[in-house]
Amino acid sequence: MDDAVLSRRSLFAAGAVGLAVPAIGAAVSWNAGAAHAGATRKVTIYAEALPGGLFGYGLAPGQATVPGPLLEIYEGDTLEITLVNTTNQRLSIHAHGVDYSTSSDGSPLHASYNNPGETRTYVWRSREMFAAAGRRFMPGSAGYWHYHDHAMGTDHGTGGVAKGLYGGLIVRRRGDILPDRQFTVVFHDMTINNRMAPNTPIFEANLGERVEWVAIGHGNLFHTFHLHAHRWADNRTGMLESISDPSPTIDNKDLNPGSSFGFQVLAGEGVGPGAWMYHCHVQNHSDGGMSGIFLVRNADGSMPPGAEEAIHRFQGHTHTTTSQSHDDHGGHGA
Amino acid sequence: MDDAVLSRRSLFAAGAVGLAVPAIGAAVSWNAGAAHAGATRKVTIYAEALPGGLFGYGLAPGQATVPGPLLEIYEGDTLEITLVNTTNQRLSIHAHGVDYSTSSDGSPLHASYNNPGETRTYVWRSREMFAAAGRRFMPGSAGYWHYHDHAMGTDHGTGGVAKGLYGGLIVRRRGDILPDRQFTVVFHDMTINNRMAPNTPIFEANLGERVEWVAIGHGNLFHTFHLHAHRWADNRTGMLESISDPSPTIDNKDLNPGSSFGFQVLAGEGVGPGAWMYHCHVQNHSDGGMSGIFLVRNADGSMPPGAEEAIHRFQGHTHTTTSQSHDDHGGHGA
Amino acid sequence: MDDAVLSRRSLFAAGAVGLAVPAIGAAVSWNAGAAHAGATRKVTIYAEALPGGLFGYGLAPGQATVPGPLLEIYEGDTLEITLVNTTNQRLSIHAHGVDYSTSSDGSPLHASYNNPGETRTYVWRSREMFAAAGRRFMPGSAGYWHYHDHAMGTDHGTGGVAKGLYGGLIVRRRGDILPDRQFTVVFHDMTINNRMAPNTPIFEANLGERVEWVAIGHGNLFHTFHLHAHRWADNRTGMLESISDPSPTIDNKDLNPGSSFGFQVLAGEGVGPGAWMYHCHVQNHSDGGMSGIFLVRNADGSMPPGAEEAIHRFQGHTHTTTSQSHDDHGGHGA
Repeated sequence: MDDAVLSRRSLFAAGAVGLAVPAIGAAVSWNAGAAHAGATRKVTIYAEALPGGLFGYGLAPGQATVPGPLLEIYEGDTLEITLVNTTNQRLSIHAHGVDYSTSSDGSPLHASYNNPGETRTYVWRSREMFAAAGRRFMPGSAGYWHYHDHAMGTDHGTGGVAKGLYGGLIVRRRGDILPDRQFTVVFHDMTINNRMAPNTPIFEANLGERVEWVAIGHGNLFHTFHLHAHRWADNRTGMLESISDPSPTIDNKDLNPGSSFGFQVLAGEGVGPGAWMYHCHVQNHSDGGMSGIFLVRNADGSMPPGAEEAIHRFQGHTHTTTSQSHDDHGGHGA
Repeated sequence: MDDAVLSRRSLFAAGAVGLAVPAIGAAVSWNAGAAHAGATRKVTIYAEALPGGLFGYGLAPGQATVPGPLLEIYEGDTLEITLVNTTNQRLSIHAHGVDYSTSSDGSPLHASYNNPGETRTYVWRSREMFAAAGRRFMPGSAGYWHYHDHAMGTDHGTGGVAKGLYGGLIVRRRGDILPDRQFTVVFHDMTINNRMAPNTPIFEANLGERVEWVAIGHGNLFHTFHLHAHRWADNRTGMLESISDPSPTIDNKDLNPGSSFGFQVLAGEGVGPGAWMYHCHVQNHSDGGMSGIFLVRNADGSMPPGAEEAIHRFQGHTHTTTSQSHDDHGGHGA
Repeated sequence: MDDAVLSRRSLFAAGAVGLAVPAIGAAVSWNAGAAHAGATRKVTIYAEALPGGLFGYGLAPGQATVPGPLLEIYEGDTLEITLVNTTNQRLSIHAHGVDYSTSSDGSPLHASYNNPGETRTYVWRSREMFAAAGRRFMPGSAGYWHYHDHAMGTDHGTGGVAKGLYGGLIVRRRGDILPDRQFTVVFHDMTINNRMAPNTPIFEANLGERVEWVAIGHGNLFHTFHLHAHRWADNRTGMLESISDPSPTIDNKDLNPGSSFGFQVLAGEGVGPGAWMYHCHVQNHSDGGMSGIFLVRNADGSMPPGAEEAIHRFQGHTHTTTSQSHDDHGGHGA
């Protein structure tokens, strides 16, 4: 790691009522380092085999997760990733939204991958918008992006993506509002983060906390991401950027392979705490297991009335399941 | 009903040339009550079984339609819906875009549904945008939304949605331009409003009238909504919100399950009257029956040259139909 | 042709390293005539049968291509198209985005098509935005649109679209930045421009050139268009229209039947020259052949290091192909 401030936020923790929820997320951000622009951030990522035929990226040996760690930089920063391939498969890391030369493309087209056991460095650069002509600007790198394998199984990384080699990448513009909590949600074939209900993530926040969702699509199917009782502007940040921002406000958005978006909501704002649903709105996908819980606790972290019952209903939920071989139906977490 | 002005607009009427078109729409709006903000509007909705295995929502007993009535409020208003379940099925009403507590979520997760024969009240609140930080705002409730069953058949209301329990919901921002006509178009599996060509709705307007389209997606398939000879800005209102509004102008838009959008056009503006097509642009969907007519009459309401011939061609139209059991192929309306 | 300046840009040419690439594009634009508004532009288009069961539109007899020529006008212009049907099939030309009367709709609904051997004129008009109410405007015609057959095979032109009768149409707003190069990319069922890898187009530009992409969706499947190492604002032009433009920046976008979008990038800007990939990000589509090369040469037109090797890898690429009968698997061009 470099000398910048590093925070590893465990996105999940055993709740006050003793729910067994998986610790499936970690994050690396250098928000505190934002004062000095154009810094180079270095991180080592370990690609590892996981139980159940899955693979994951992690920030330390033995800590790979599905999805991988949420990476976060500011426009102007460079991210230098040393990818350690601890597996017996060819794999890589390919990023959306940032700048890289062909050698960091992560694709077999450019022989840009790690052979089994190999360590290789990938460099991702980012930049601010710059003037085009008139009042126009060529866009900078800011966005809710993602990264994924582009070399396992096929030249497009279909095998790696299918088995969990993906994660979120945020490039912030200076002045962006920072969240209290961050969730990465990957709609991938019939799964959410390679899990099916009732084993899908329970994302938790306290009433009024600013929660950032990073939504990513992968695989072969089309999806729509729906969140109950919360909504966002369909633009770069999810907030209206001025009183005359023309963006529509939505609570359901297409989330198709290779696409990603993000937004911030105030947990339970205007609706109160509770075990709110998020799900794919394609009916046979939600019925088949693409559904999860956004648990908004009381402001003091205690459980609101009815939330436990709702979660128990969810966990007892019968699905007309299209089962997936890489999904574990036993237990409620890892 | 409360003391606000209530208008029930019959969206369909037998045309001057004697077309048999279905009276499938009604609407409740409180536009005239917009002067006083934050009003509570009360409405009773009846969920009923319909011929052909369908179900519908209606504003009075025996008046259920597919889609249900178009509901319309202003940001700041509260909508209190007393849902009367006249059927022998568990069902509910779940809204997109508005605020509700878990007891009005409409989902079995929160035991928020009507048992057979049961009456239950659902409360939907709305609000204006409010300051976040800098010049940013958390978005308000304004939008082209929708409501649907979330309890019949499965925990996601798949059975109710499949059989017609859905409708449009508009939350307006103060100052929004009001239309002369409103159409609700639901792309749902291989149907439009649970009908297939040539029994799909013929939406009618006179040349130059301001027509508002509310488009909603449901079911298991992906769709694209295309309207001939008219176009709109891909933003909140469908109009450019200023001379520098960056939104693209489109005439074809993804309309996938759980998504909705709306826009206003001036009927026949720049192109003249005629029997204009609207259809899903997925080729085997349009060929299979997802096609209908937007009949723009002359300004005085008379039929323009060629429109009758076009409609007769449409009605004689042969489709390479993927038939749907819940579609009635007999007659041209109800 | 009328008296306006006509440029026919060959989008493809044999490269310096002797790559055999297809000359599949031509374009007609009247940019030089932009000074006088509201001009009427006349063009003759020939619909022709092509080898392999394909059909194409062309600007002269024997010059039909898939996709057809890229047409380009300014808001306010009228385009008068004389369509010569040299085939033995019923066919037409239907435009998105512009104004036309029912007789130029291009659909059998309005008997607006060419019988075999018939010549017929279609008139497309365009206009600037005009005031609605308050600061709002009804949108003008500016956009990245497209045209296609609407009469061959079915009333929706499914046969013509399947066999290659489609092309791009740009309506510019005065003041729009003009590109150095233009590429038309049609995602159509399992093909790109009715070709599959490794026979998909190699689009070429020199480092720093302003390249305009026009992306169009057709057929029965959903797609997502992804371009490596480049990105654009998800708005009308692909550039941020001001420092406070709220549009997200993306590098992957839904490209479904009937939809189109366009954007400009500076070739290799910030990433350098190279054989960059573009592909559908639906995994079994990219694996199945929906992948191609955006070859960014050095600024002087010479080949950058590694590009030839990458292209050779691409051409030797093994695909888990879902073969399509209308795709030619022999050779690397036409």
